[in-house]
Amino acid sequence: MQKKLLDYLEIEKENHLMQLIDLLKIPTISSDSKFNSAMKRGATWLQNHIKEIGFNNVTIIENRDKVKNINPPVISANKKGHPIVYGEWLEAGPNAKTILIYGHYDVQPVDPINLWETLPFEPTIRNGKIYARGSSDDKGQFFCHLKALEAHMKLFGKLPVNVKILLEGEEESDSSLDEFIINNKELLKCDYAVISDTEWIAPDTPSICYALRGIAYVEVKVTGPNRDLHSGTFGGAVDNPIQVLASMISKLKDEHGKITIPNFYDDVLELTEEERNEFKKLPFNEENYKKDLGVAALNGEAGYSTLERTWARPSLDVHGITGGYTGEGAKTVLPSWASAKISSRIVPHQKPNEISKKIADYLRDIAPPTVKVEVDELHYGGPVLVNRHGEGITAAIKAFKKAFNTQKVVFMREGGSIPIVTVFENELNAPSILMGFGLPDDNIHSPNESFALENFFGGIRTAAIFYDLLK
Amino acid sequence: MQKKLLDYLEIEKENHLMQLIDLLKIPTISSDSKFNSAMKRGATWLQNHIKEIGFNNVTIIENRDKVKNINPPVISANKKGHPIVYGEWLEAGPNAKTILIYGHYDVQPVDPINLWETLPFEPTIRNGKIYARGSSDDKGQFFCHLKALEAHMKLFGKLPVNVKILLEGEEESDSSLDEFIINNKELLKCDYAVISDTEWIAPDTPSICYALRGIAYVEVKVTGPNRDLHSGTFGGAVDNPIQVLASMISKLKDEHGKITIPNFYDDVLELTEEERNEFKKLPFNEENYKKDLGVAALNGEAGYSTLERTWARPSLDVHGITGGYTGEGAKTVLPSWASAKISSRIVPHQKPNEISKKIADYLRDIAPPTVKVEVDELHYGGPVLVNRHGEGITAAIKAFKKAFNTQKVVFMREGGSIPIVTVFENELNAPSILMGFGLPDDNIHSPNESFALENFFGGIRTAAIFYDLLK
Repeated sequence: MQKKLLDYLEIEKENHLMQLIDLLKIPTISSDSKFNSAMKRGATWLQNHIKEIGFNNVTIIENRDKVKNINPPVISANKKGHPIVYGEWLEAGPNAKTILIYGHYDVQPVDPINLWETLPFEPTIRNGKIYARGSSDDKGQFFCHLKALEAHMKLFGKLPVNVKILLEGEEESDSSLDEFIINNKELLKCDYAVISDTEWIAPDTPSICYALRGIAYVEVKVTGPNRDLHSGTFGGAVDNPIQVLASMISKLKDEHGKITIPNFYDDVLELTEEERNEFKKLPFNEENYKKDLGVAALNGEAGYSTLERTWARPSLDVHGITGGYTGEGAKTVLPSWASAKISSRIVPHQKPNEISKKIADYLRDIAPPTVKVEVDELHYGGPVLVNRHGEGITAAIKAFKKAFNTQKVVFMREGGSIPIVTVFENELNAPSILMGFGLPDDNIHSPNESFALENFFGGIRTAAIFYDLLK
Repeated sequence: MQKKLLDYLEIEKENHLMQLIDLLKIPTISSDSKFNSAMKRGATWLQNHIKEIGFNNVTIIENRDKVKNINPPVISANKKGHPIVYGEWLEAGPNAKTILIYGHYDVQPVDPINLWETLPFEPTIRNGKIYARGSSDDKGQFFCHLKALEAHMKLFGKLPVNVKILLEGEEESDSSLDEFIINNKELLKCDYAVISDTEWIAPDTPSICYALRGIAYVEVKVTGPNRDLHSGTFGGAVDNPIQVLASMISKLKDEHGKITIPNFYDDVLELTEEERNEFKKLPFNEENYKKDLGVAALNGEAGYSTLERTWARPSLDVHGITGGYTGEGAKTVLPSWASAKISSRIVPHQKPNEISKKIADYLRDIAPPTVKVEVDELHYGGPVLVNRHGEGITAAIKAFKKAFNTQKVVFMREGGSIPIVTVFENELNAPSILMGFGLPDDNIHSPNESFALENFFGGIRTAAIFYDLLK
């Protein structure tokens, strides 16, 4: 059966590529209202395409209006935004698994346009890659799933699992999809959310991301005297809020890079020996990493490698600081206040609201009596950890191995958050399978974005086998 | 002789006050070009007034043009600015002392105008004070000297010393008087510069300021990665320039408020026991000081009082800090750089260029290998210490005692710099006598500026006696 699929996909390669090129030609830049009509064209193109594959109830949910042709009816989110494309095929029956495929058809802006070798919306093939905005992020990646499901339909007249397709148009701007999901839990109910919107750790190394860090974000303001003072008249007797804040910030970590906030590490899930050994074997070159960043040395929590520090250990960064006179030249103010934005990237099983409270309490605790301290909690999101031994991940690994004819499929984590993954987990109780097909040099969000053709075709094969394995 | 002066001044009080009111009506705001013609009117008023007193070569030096009617000819400064008024009476002969009287006829802006109880350029008398912008800072104060010298002229047909009057119109904006002084050293040669532009430490406590702090100012920039990074992807492995800078700033002082820069205190002249005892007796109320600033506690170098810390000990303040995202809301950048403006108020006999070098060297020294550090020296000025036992100061004390009928004349210092004092000292080799007549509640630079009438009339008496004592 998989042989049949792979043979069919080999024959259809040219055809699939031509279709992707069609999709990539539509300039679906969501953050610029000049492209609003392109956004609608993109959604319509996808609606028609998904209908043709054989999906049911394929609907453009525009401005999140109530849509009644679907059962249960779609309930709008409050915010007006770019259209969602939804479609479903639920004929595999109640005992079959239900998979929610998530993707986004909107793309990043293209500036600086003069750095593109070929135009971003005139897809061009060279060096075994297709160059176009959105080729890797994320049109090329989610399109792999559509083509894989189409193959099942064409060859067998059905899909091996129930499938819901959810394509949003706001991932690169200000997404309101979380609200939509919260409002439509029954509609989107599933066993797994499948997302292909990540990249491999290196070429020829299919990678499955099984954990993400969360975030707890606060803003702290330190106020000293009730007005800006003259540093000549008052300097030496009145505590300077910038220096107080600097000192407080310097007390957030010790000389070993450990965060010094009391009980901060209480709920941190330590890496297993298995994970640490896996990380060590990953193709990560620290010299190249430093060179790319232009730094002579790295620094972080003692006892952990760079990948461990960024993927699986909590971190704490100051994102912005301001106070006093910051214009040109020399002024001699002893300022009334200073403020900073601080966040911690948190890991399983730290709880974001608990961590922001610990940060806030600690900042208030260490403040000297010479100042007043206010701490606002700005936002937070939870970390994610997917069971590496679950059926979905196991199927994804097998599919990657077969589709790319390799034994080298690796697990990786990500240091950042993918908010939608947390929403799927919290609202739909659905683990996500992050099976990306991108490569580190795809230049997503930059000029000359590309998607390797081998990863496009291999991605389709992977998805086709993956769904077959889940049946 | 002094009796005659005092009797005359008693009779002339009303007259002197009317003349001061005339001068205060001219809105000589130097920082706002809308008042440029008022600046010229102010200069002309003073030129005429000084001529009438009997001074010679009374000249408006406009835009610093070359002025040849004076010998030596006035050499212009490069910068075009508001007119200087210069006049001289040098007939006391080569063996008599020569006094340079410095003052400024320009005033601060008046905003917020709605907080003035009476209009700033309609001088009004109430509660024994004259309310007007410039009444204390500095028209009312330097006018005391003009009236005192006029009394000598009227009564005796001559002055007891040679006198040069130098009134500038740029003290409250961007003064170029230093350049003018450097270009006209011979013209301005003198034994003492006399400046009445400071305030007493408390009412009924005539105060002579004998020392000022200097300043050494640097700007430091800490650069980490070559671009702003995503704190999710890189946080925990790449040093954050804001945190590095905060840590560097926190290392500039220890927990006892001592500046930790190596050899920083090498040249600091310790206070004498006499000075410390004098300071202790000064009418300074620390509770009121804290209340006025709105701080619950003060902080500074251990072992020193507030007055000692601000007047006679070096201090170190951060005037501004910036880095990363400082707009509203939460962004998660790990920024490429952060910078701060830092200065030290220095005391005799610290040398400003040496101190800025020590600060810069130390900042470079303590920077970790994860960042690059650039330090710019922005500006600096030297501290001032006048011999408290010199003839000029001794005469000023005696004059204060007699004129205000008090034994309570005190020495004080100031934490800030008065740049012109340093210029007189360095360029003319002339010690300054800072005999101010202002009071702490004169509201200089604020709405409802005032000058106590008793201090105005007493200031004239003080000056008249002072010049008599110097003969």
